[in-house]
Amino acid sequence: MNPVYRKLGTTIFEAMSARARASGAINLGQGFPDGRGPQDVLAEAARALIEDSNQYPPMLGTAPLRQAVAEHYRVHQGLDLAPEEVVVTSGATEALACAIFALVSPGDEVVMFQPLYDAYLPLVERAGGVARLVRLAPPEWRITAEALAAVASDKTRLIILNSPLNPAGALATPQELALLADFCISHDCVAICDEVWEHVVFDGARHQSLIAQPGMRERTVKIGSAGKIFSLTGWKVGWMCATPRLAGVLAKAHQFLTFTTAPNLQAGAAFGLGKDLAYFEGMRAGYQRSRDRLRGGLERLGYAVLPCASTYFLNIDLTASGVDMGDVAFAEWLIEEAGVATIPVSAFYAEAPVTNVVRLCFAKQDATLDAALERMTRRP
Amino acid sequence: MNPVYRKLGTTIFEAMSARARASGAINLGQGFPDGRGPQDVLAEAARALIEDSNQYPPMLGTAPLRQAVAEHYRVHQGLDLAPEEVVVTSGATEALACAIFALVSPGDEVVMFQPLYDAYLPLVERAGGVARLVRLAPPEWRITAEALAAVASDKTRLIILNSPLNPAGALATPQELALLADFCISHDCVAICDEVWEHVVFDGARHQSLIAQPGMRERTVKIGSAGKIFSLTGWKVGWMCATPRLAGVLAKAHQFLTFTTAPNLQAGAAFGLGKDLAYFEGMRAGYQRSRDRLRGGLERLGYAVLPCASTYFLNIDLTASGVDMGDVAFAEWLIEEAGVATIPVSAFYAEAPVTNVVRLCFAKQDATLDAALERMTRRP
Ligand SMILES: CSCCC(=O)C(=O)O
Ligand SMILES: CSCCC(=O)C(=O)O
Repeated sequence: MNPVYRKLGTTIFEAMSARARASGAINLGQGFPDGRGPQDVLAEAARALIEDSNQYPPMLGTAPLRQAVAEHYRVHQGLDLAPEEVVVTSGATEALACAIFALVSPGDEVVMFQPLYDAYLPLVERAGGVARLVRLAPPEWRITAEALAAVASDKTRLIILNSPLNPAGALATPQELALLADFCISHDCVAICDEVWEHVVFDGARHQSLIAQPGMRERTVKIGSAGKIFSLTGWKVGWMCATPRLAGVLAKAHQFLTFTTAPNLQAGAAFGLGKDLAYFEGMRAGYQRSRDRLRGGLERLGYAVLPCASTYFLNIDLTASGVDMGDVAFAEWLIEEAGVATIPVSAFYAEAPVTNVVRLCFAKQDATLDAALERMTRRP
Repeated sequence: MNPVYRKLGTTIFEAMSARARASGAINLGQGFPDGRGPQDVLAEAARALIEDSNQYPPMLGTAPLRQAVAEHYRVHQGLDLAPEEVVVTSGATEALACAIFALVSPGDEVVMFQPLYDAYLPLVERAGGVARLVRLAPPEWRITAEALAAVASDKTRLIILNSPLNPAGALATPQELALLADFCISHDCVAICDEVWEHVVFDGARHQSLIAQPGMRERTVKIGSAGKIFSLTGWKVGWMCATPRLAGVLAKAHQFLTFTTAPNLQAGAAFGLGKDLAYFEGMRAGYQRSRDRLRGGLERLGYAVLPCASTYFLNIDLTASGVDMGDVAFAEWLIEEAGVATIPVSAFYAEAPVTNVVRLCFAKQDATLDAALERMTRRP
């Protein structure tokens, strides 16, 4: 058995969801909304399932979906991507795996940022890469020139950036984007940009992609997710966007990881990406209301909550809340004693963890949030 | 960029389908049926899409599908698998990728058989494995003890077996299964068994899995595909079955390749696996009629056709047909001059190719087969 997997546990998201299912805890751990998602997107996927072909679609994705992704980014982010620069994958996780397996050769150094989504490190290691980790910390989670300089070497080949950043809920600033572009260009690196949270941004902010920085167009792989955009996390329809030269290599990896993605779900995603601005505004406004509801409730219970500009997640700062426990112990207490599942943020660190932050998913109906707050009235 | 992918072309199946779409050739290349698939399975998937959750299902697969796979193999193959021994994947290709990335460490030798499905070799190489290829040849495509002995070493860790064998259409014989079991046990190897064609067997034959051989239960990963079983190749719902110890490692790889598979398609597959014997008999009988129709037509045109016990594929033996061309040249002539896309079987060889066999997919409506035969009336 491969040693990378031998030492690995089950992903914390799955483990917490399984415990919540088993114990009846309210699940504010794994990041998924409990709504139904947009009915018209579901209806289009159901129509295509019954009326259209269910045989292998083209390996790179259906023409309508590749077209829709390019057009969507033109309208929403002012990007100029051709449909040929879009490769459809079975979810953003597959896109990450494709990009990492395609772009990493044994011995290559890969710069990543902690907190880091738990798929990155095992994928990089399985690909033979060597992780160089930059540690970010609350409350600002900012990347500095010094921190980047400290991990650079002549073996640096790749950076993996997650912005908006899960679990922090922070957006990369223009300064950080300029810094990262500089770094990639001067070290001749490719950037894998996991932007699955690009639409879930609040308070009128707008997501900025590293791909739009001068000089980055030809060295960026931009990854997106229909599951996150349409609140349908089980669909597992994602994509990666890159110039034809890069996209060609990514496609080689994709053709032997899943090869294709169900055509009816691609049809649903293509339809959804063309929905009007009001839909996306409404989606954002809904999640923002939920964020504010949970934040207000937590603050009333005496918890100090970190700023949240994006994602489905709010973070409690345990130190500032006067909770004299580490994040793992507090998350254990919450699921065992209060019946609320959360994610301890140290799970997003491979080394030197931040241990005083716990993540709660607010993408839930009001009643669910209120019930969780009710259960949290008692403090440890 | 990783060298494994740099040197790789686009999969021949995709390339031929793209050429057929562009030129209007009748596509007997890539293996997919042109029927609609079972209406009740589609209806169940559509119902689940509209009525049930579209959020992340459990990472290992939904409980009903894992149960249905285990039960299906009990009824159809007399196997005794627990639902906990089933890990659902986004198609059999993902299952292959999981198994290979999980079980191969750099330097491990992997025994594979040519003709070999084109995903195997790049996945093994990307995983750091060293391929040891056994060459099989028409008309019998049989594995011998001598051929196995010639590739064995003290680094042998894995064999990858495709039975029923694409493109040959051959089933492993009891003698071959005993030989392979012996080999795995004496070399302490795991067997990855790609059995996606297990249901598409003809003339009353029955698929036998290597996992049922004495001593193989705890060292076999059995891979199956709902797409192939239900003639819905675009669904990309597959699974791998193995004892809990092995399944645990496979799951680690799966959680970071796709993580999960759309729950509504899992619901459709679970429903379908419970269909009565008559459905599976009918499916087989239908494909067998198509096989016989294409075979009869090809023989009337003077082509010598190799035996076909399974899969969607018939093979023309060019030498015995008196065609004085290699398989690639003949397939080129067929698509360019006759307007029929096929697959030259040399594409399934990494070295020492068989060059006198061309594969045709017969899983098509009568009218399609007849039209292709009509176009093939003229010979090169
Ligand atoms: C793949 S499960 C994890 C979902 C998610 O994005 C999160 O909870 O952070
Ligand atoms: C993944 S496309 C290949 C389909 C198939 O099994 C074949 O044509 O051999």
